Amino acid sequence: MLAVFCVRACSGLGGLRTATRVRSVHSLPGITVAQIDEEVAKLLQLKAQIGGDDGKHQFVLKTAKGTRDYNPKQMAIRERVFNTIIGCFKRHGAETIDTPVFELKETLTGKYGEDSKLIYDLKDQGGELLSLRYDLTVPFARYLAMNKITNIKRYHIAKVYRRDNPAMTRGRYREFYQCDFDIAGQYDGMIPDAECLKIVHEILSELDLGDFRIKVNDRRILDGMFAVCGVPDDKFRSICSTVDKLDKMPWEDVKKEMVNEKGLSEEAADRIGEYVSLQGGMDLAERLLQDHRMSQSKQACAGLSDIKLLFSYLQLFQVTDKVVFDLSLARGLDYYTGIIYEAVLTQAGVAPAPAEAQNGASAEESVSVGSVAGGGRYDGLVGMFDPKGRKVPCVGVSIGIERIFSIMEQKAEALAEKVRTTEVQVMVASAQKNLLEEKLRLITELWNAGIKAEVMYKKNPKLLSQLQHCEESGIPLVAILGEQELKDGVVKLRVVATREEVDISRADLIAEIRKRTSEA
Amino acid sequence: MLAVFCVRACSGLGGLRTATRVRSVHSLPGITVAQIDEEVAKLLQLKAQIGGDDGKHQFVLKTAKGTRDYNPKQMAIRERVFNTIIGCFKRHGAETIDTPVFELKETLTGKYGEDSKLIYDLKDQGGELLSLRYDLTVPFARYLAMNKITNIKRYHIAKVYRRDNPAMTRGRYREFYQCDFDIAGQYDGMIPDAECLKIVHEILSELDLGDFRIKVNDRRILDGMFAVCGVPDDKFRSICSTVDKLDKMPWEDVKKEMVNEKGLSEEAADRIGEYVSLQGGMDLAERLLQDHRMSQSKQACAGLSDIKLLFSYLQLFQVTDKVVFDLSLARGLDYYTGIIYEAVLTQAGVAPAPAEAQNGASAEESVSVGSVAGGGRYDGLVGMFDPKGRKVPCVGVSIGIERIFSIMEQKAEALAEKVRTTEVQVMVASAQKNLLEEKLRLITELWNAGIKAEVMYKKNPKLLSQLQHCEESGIPLVAILGEQELKDGVVKLRVVATREEVDISRADLIAEIRKRTSEA
Repeated sequence: MLAVFCVRACSGLGGLRTATRVRSVHSLPGITVAQIDEEVAKLLQLKAQIGGDDGKHQFVLKTAKGTRDYNPKQMAIRERVFNTIIGCFKRHGAETIDTPVFELKETLTGKYGEDSKLIYDLKDQGGELLSLRYDLTVPFARYLAMNKITNIKRYHIAKVYRRDNPAMTRGRYREFYQCDFDIAGQYDGMIPDAECLKIVHEILSELDLGDFRIKVNDRRILDGMFAVCGVPDDKFRSICSTVDKLDKMPWEDVKKEMVNEKGLSEEAADRIGEYVSLQGGMDLAERLLQDHRMSQSKQACAGLSDIKLLFSYLQLFQVTDKVVFDLSLARGLDYYTGIIYEAVLTQAGVAPAPAEAQNGASAEESVSVGSVAGGGRYDGLVGMFDPKGRKVPCVGVSIGIERIFSIMEQKAEALAEKVRTTEVQVMVASAQKNLLEEKLRLITELWNAGIKAEVMYKKNPKLLSQLQHCEESGIPLVAILGEQELKDGVVKLRVVATREEVDISRADLIAEIRKRTSEA
Repeated sequence: MLAVFCVRACSGLGGLRTATRVRSVHSLPGITVAQIDEEVAKLLQLKAQIGGDDGKHQFVLKTAKGTRDYNPKQMAIRERVFNTIIGCFKRHGAETIDTPVFELKETLTGKYGEDSKLIYDLKDQGGELLSLRYDLTVPFARYLAMNKITNIKRYHIAKVYRRDNPAMTRGRYREFYQCDFDIAGQYDGMIPDAECLKIVHEILSELDLGDFRIKVNDRRILDGMFAVCGVPDDKFRSICSTVDKLDKMPWEDVKKEMVNEKGLSEEAADRIGEYVSLQGGMDLAERLLQDHRMSQSKQACAGLSDIKLLFSYLQLFQVTDKVVFDLSLARGLDYYTGIIYEAVLTQAGVAPAPAEAQNGASAEESVSVGSVAGGGRYDGLVGMFDPKGRKVPCVGVSIGIERIFSIMEQKAEALAEKVRTTEVQVMVASAQKNLLEEKLRLITELWNAGIKAEVMYKKNPKLLSQLQHCEESGIPLVAILGEQELKDGVVKLRVVATREEVDISRADLIAEIRKRTSEA
């Protein structure tokens, strides 16, 4: 037995009171993990029951930290964004799949490098050890290996979970959507990679979020660059994750971290510094292929040739206006093996300071307001799951939908845009009392004909409140019943916007509603 | 320090080997829960790393128990089912919301009675104690209370989690979708309740799953019945959960459980037995209002009057053909306060044995193959979350979508139905080599015009393999480029089904594809 001798909760007048004592013991032979587990579980259960330390039960009415509800207005915006994105994925011929929200813990183990600490685990309640998915890419790779699929073009839109420090105002949550598009299969170089960038270009253009830029680099160029700059092999990943901070920190601080914290030589850091300031297109790739240092790395040359080929396809896809080859781009995840990319929204009109402009910064320079898409090639991930290590090359992109939601919501708010949250075409109303049955008869006709219709759940609502409801929720038509209309076999159809009213025979009503709402 | 002195894993030739020893200790002063926690975490992590007990790493390529992936074909069926259901919810003017997949543990505490043991908890990794949602109803009530919403008509389609014993062949999973429609607000009696049943009727009819029946009862009728039959107050819930087993067990066994396990008197059980065999419509409610025992219960009378009113609305909604007032229906969940209902699919054509028929079973009796929808009124749940206990009356229905998916999948398989998993309208192909660039130019035109198009990711694919891909994935058109076509400024458009080929000028191509695929 472990040290917990008395675990009980007694409810008193002042809420729950606890009488727990964790006594220290002086002899404890033959302790097993199962026993520890059991005792820990008891304590945690008790902690959950009693709430706070003061022994008083404080029920908090909230969602879990870093998560949020979506109200109907937010859902309407979300639906619009999803429709645009799914429309694009379908235009490019993608199928869709779904995977469970949790995976065996070991499926996720060793795939995310340092980020593994952010994975949510489920409690061990007996049975398998489970974790919430951290992204959609690893489950996709598991799916391919498990089903022995060697080529597929699929999208997957679902929530993922990260125990990160949430910054919810900037659209960063612990539960958030990912919209992934991936192409798996052995194909000729750079064609699927270029299509991924085309897709990012189409989606960001269509969503009309303002100007954007897609940065492109290659894991092999980074590794080659580190090698020729004199970074020891075992420091590649660590230095890479420091380079990754260049979008948030100035070079001086990044250099300091490399030299002081990671122990890189100052000369090596300076050489890296020269490269990571470079941006361009196909021309830059050509220039670097001639670079006396870079050209010594076979890896870097392979990456640079692929960048050249990529840009030739991007020209055919008409998207080079937004794509930049940027040697400072270094995405964190362990599994990338080739091209990597990231799309950022840019705020135009922020002129650079003159000093910066002289230092070579372009006059068109704009301020990045955050990443909205990212991805790359990961040719080794599926092989990690395959019992025989068979590889399936993959390239994909993930759209950062939460940030896009945030921007769209702010936009809707700024424009005081009226977002409809239902699609109701007609309200069935009455001007007089005791017509509930007649209204229910009529709305049944409408529903059965596929018309979207509402009626108030009151026996005798006032006409005014019925009309007000239409104004508020944007319902365009009202079908009004009264004694006279019933006698004449008609319905008074009112157009909410113009207040125009016309009598329509019952037989023509459905056609009339369809006609009037198909235009809207 | 706790008893774990040596926790390390060393990888050797034969896979991972562990050198863990959990030594017993002879003195252990001042142990804290945090320390236990830490040590347990280390052990579990190790356990996850090493896999089995033999110290050999056994990586299992599977999804978690009780869960499944959806492949593209299953997703296509799922999309179709969702579209039907969402279409119905929207036709009835519902908005939609979303809530996080996990809630604070205490939000779920005390809402599910005995089923609470099936809730998935998250591991305590510091911070709040969290649980995966068990249904969508409790999060909905939490949402209403938190946002002080007093009336809303909303649907919510999302996954919920239950640590149940999965029976996956019958469509029972640990992760599964719920499709909920609920009406919250203070309204005139039975109008929203009747609309919920109308919705179930519409959805099950539209999905064309075969014949079905919607059983209706009322929590107050059950409670009143228990009272007048002589069940002690404190046994209502327990006896109720036994009655709930009547759809799986014969009355004899149910009675045995009441008498032998729950300690009910035989007379009381027999009285209950008489009532729970009753089925009917408005007439049965009228009859029971006159029943010498039932009429003594105020509660039962209130329930019976509401059933009468409900049926009058159901007549107007034209759905009484499928609705049965059935006194044996007793849904398990604690939170129901009024009407309850459940829809079951019935297999017609299974004639009852003669003996049964003589015992009053109708000749039309059919065998239930499982519940596909259920719900009821829960007027107290929101008040459980409101700091001041303010009530918001609610009624709702949940569509059991997983079982519906299973049936649809079996149907598609039985009919050998070809389910398309993409919506591609045209494949851009070439008959000769070295036309990749031209194909990419053409597909860019098509994509930019909103046409769903695909091209093979090969420089020089064979025409035959391009055409085969169209056959396999149901792409109706092929746009074929060749030297001659390029010279003539045309594209050869091939109809896959008929093999007909026509030359279309580049300028007319988009319009021609639209015309030909809008008919399909």
